[in-house]
Amino acid sequence: MKEVYSFTKSRELFSRAEKIIPSGIYGHQGPAEGCYIPVDAFPFYSERAQGSYFWDADGNRFIDYMCGYGPNVLGYNDPDVNAAADAQREKCDCVTIPSTVMVDFADLLVDTVACADWAFFAKNGNDVTSLAVLTARAHTHRKKIVFFKGFYHGVSPWTQKIDYPGILPEEVANNIYLPWNDFQAIEDVFRTQGDEIAAVIGQPYMHGNFFDNTLPAEGFWKHVRDLCHKHGSLLIIDDVRAGFRLDLAGSDHFYGFKADLICFCKALANGYNVSALCGGEQFKSTVSGISFTGSYWMSAVPFAAGIACIEKMKRKNLPELLRSRGELLASGLRAAAEKFGYDLRITGEPALPYFRIANDPTLALHQEWVAECVRRGVFITNHHNHFMNASLTEADIAETVEIATEAFSVIKDRHTK
Amino acid sequence: MKEVYSFTKSRELFSRAEKIIPSGIYGHQGPAEGCYIPVDAFPFYSERAQGSYFWDADGNRFIDYMCGYGPNVLGYNDPDVNAAADAQREKCDCVTIPSTVMVDFADLLVDTVACADWAFFAKNGNDVTSLAVLTARAHTHRKKIVFFKGFYHGVSPWTQKIDYPGILPEEVANNIYLPWNDFQAIEDVFRTQGDEIAAVIGQPYMHGNFFDNTLPAEGFWKHVRDLCHKHGSLLIIDDVRAGFRLDLAGSDHFYGFKADLICFCKALANGYNVSALCGGEQFKSTVSGISFTGSYWMSAVPFAAGIACIEKMKRKNLPELLRSRGELLASGLRAAAEKFGYDLRITGEPALPYFRIANDPTLALHQEWVAECVRRGVFITNHHNHFMNASLTEADIAETVEIATEAFSVIKDRHTK
Repeated sequence: MKEVYSFTKSRELFSRAEKIIPSGIYGHQGPAEGCYIPVDAFPFYSERAQGSYFWDADGNRFIDYMCGYGPNVLGYNDPDVNAAADAQREKCDCVTIPSTVMVDFADLLVDTVACADWAFFAKNGNDVTSLAVLTARAHTHRKKIVFFKGFYHGVSPWTQKIDYPGILPEEVANNIYLPWNDFQAIEDVFRTQGDEIAAVIGQPYMHGNFFDNTLPAEGFWKHVRDLCHKHGSLLIIDDVRAGFRLDLAGSDHFYGFKADLICFCKALANGYNVSALCGGEQFKSTVSGISFTGSYWMSAVPFAAGIACIEKMKRKNLPELLRSRGELLASGLRAAAEKFGYDLRITGEPALPYFRIANDPTLALHQEWVAECVRRGVFITNHHNHFMNASLTEADIAETVEIATEAFSVIKDRHTK
Repeated sequence: MKEVYSFTKSRELFSRAEKIIPSGIYGHQGPAEGCYIPVDAFPFYSERAQGSYFWDADGNRFIDYMCGYGPNVLGYNDPDVNAAADAQREKCDCVTIPSTVMVDFADLLVDTVACADWAFFAKNGNDVTSLAVLTARAHTHRKKIVFFKGFYHGVSPWTQKIDYPGILPEEVANNIYLPWNDFQAIEDVFRTQGDEIAAVIGQPYMHGNFFDNTLPAEGFWKHVRDLCHKHGSLLIIDDVRAGFRLDLAGSDHFYGFKADLICFCKALANGYNVSALCGGEQFKSTVSGISFTGSYWMSAVPFAAGIACIEKMKRKNLPELLRSRGELLASGLRAAAEKFGYDLRITGEPALPYFRIANDPTLALHQEWVAECVRRGVFITNHHNHFMNASLTEADIAETVEIATEAFSVIKDRHTK
């Protein structure tokens, strides 16, 4: 039996943090909102990370299936990416005029991404989803944006919910929310409001939180693509989460269609801080006219890291590797669940699997299982997709399945007493 | 006579770039909008940077008074900041749960910044000015934001101009624009709309582009502070540009008042990518309730770099150092200008000087002078403030004055022939 972890130092540090940081830890990573794991099973702070593992402040080791919520795609502290970053830093990083490496990075993205005739770099996924929406509005002189329910496109007011703190109704008044994979709904909205729609924005498949993830229905993206063409609206793919994990040419390419604008961030540079908007030639002059920049947007080190990351993803044939690792994990976990009579649903693409124990509609049993996995060194989360990375070995997956099995056994015992 | 630079490689690279990057180079750094220097005098790409210098793609060396538009505060490639970053990267950077160093960085900011009871970290100055506005609206349940004309607070729609591409009128409908240093105007707006004003947002002094920079009038900030208190509105200081260069406790402290929320970015980590919002205890729970996060916001390396940067700024007594260097530069340049009968106006704080040759109201003569400086290795810009950094030596300043003198001589000759 695997020893159950304790989190004494994480807790001590958090009690210091909650005095001087809003929520103690904000965002997904915080115990208040985010990781959705029962708080007592959850480490709060990391101390070290290498490959597919991180160690928390108490020295507990985790096989990590969240990957920093995406940026860790090759493995933490990848030596090739670090070497490229170091070589660039020796020359220059954040300088008054951009480094020559910026052009090389744009070149590589244009070569790699199917719909990309150009690249624009920023820092957050949110920066580039926002630039995409500005571009669509500037290009079409229209206001309305179509979203698919369950979306997440960042934190700017235009993409938040009307009842979220600080958001004004007028900031989201031009948003139209449609059900995912609903052919009729999007056809209706284009028939009635087509000449007001600046863009449709969507993730390549529905990988939202708190529900099983759903791939695009056969022909759905072609339908959306055709409607956008017909009505002169832009099709924006938010590939911040799935980007490069499914297809190095972009997730639109993976599903057989072509985005007008595509947004990348997480997997772009293995954790070095950079995001990118890419798109078609016909939108380049519109983007050029938009007032959009930031203090660190020309930093050269993340560009060099991004080049090394993309080149290594190509060498490793990353999408195929992640798919096979994801399938191995899924079959191991499903078999383990079945042994105890649990129906573990694994949805979404194998490179970004979403888990749910379907026996209990309240999701409480699922949360218990996740907690028992985390306490034993498998870092998964309750109601958010997971991320595979290239350094995850078959041995890691075997160990994961072993721990998951023990976790199923613990919850089975608890609920049959 | 100093040899005049040529920019062959910069031009070649740019002709590649403009095919694959919107504008070729976007933002301030681009020839289209931004550096405001006549394009033929201006290098486009950097190859190396060290201390107070950068070298462009053609190997030309520049004494740099733009400092990456602010991030370079200690000197490019600072060994102490780099050592701290390396030590942290060896452990971990962008991990699923934040590193322990995040708490240490928040602690240091709370100790350092006068109005800070807490710190929230993000990536862009724009992230934290946006969070400040969300906080003010969430806290007051009001919509209106007061700006001072000449402001720059980033690129999100709420802070752009109504006629900028992609911006919707409703996104800026709650903005009130007042003249800087106008006691009566702000009093009037509070008298008539005080119960609708969520916040006043301002830079600590007016360091806008295309006009002489203006310090706060005696008593102006106290007047604004009193009005905000009286009407329950928040006072937000955007210290992204001036932060730490005037006062390590914040520019509000420098001018003798206390902000409710203060925004930092550029000088926070000597170019490593991090920004911060700090503020008073009474706003912490509001910030905690706002949905605001990003993929790289927990990256540990920039936190470690930020700690090393702030500690070194303290050891060097940075504000005093930058002030004395700025004063030395200003007196040298003014004397050089006078020799040729030019009235060089130097405004703003000495650490962030703004230059204008006042003899020619069209500014064309000023642009010619800037061009001749840049062609000879002094990187200044036309209509934006400059930035001093700690590695700038007296010898650098003497060389700058020498080159500036030659530049005055060249334009004098040109216009007296």
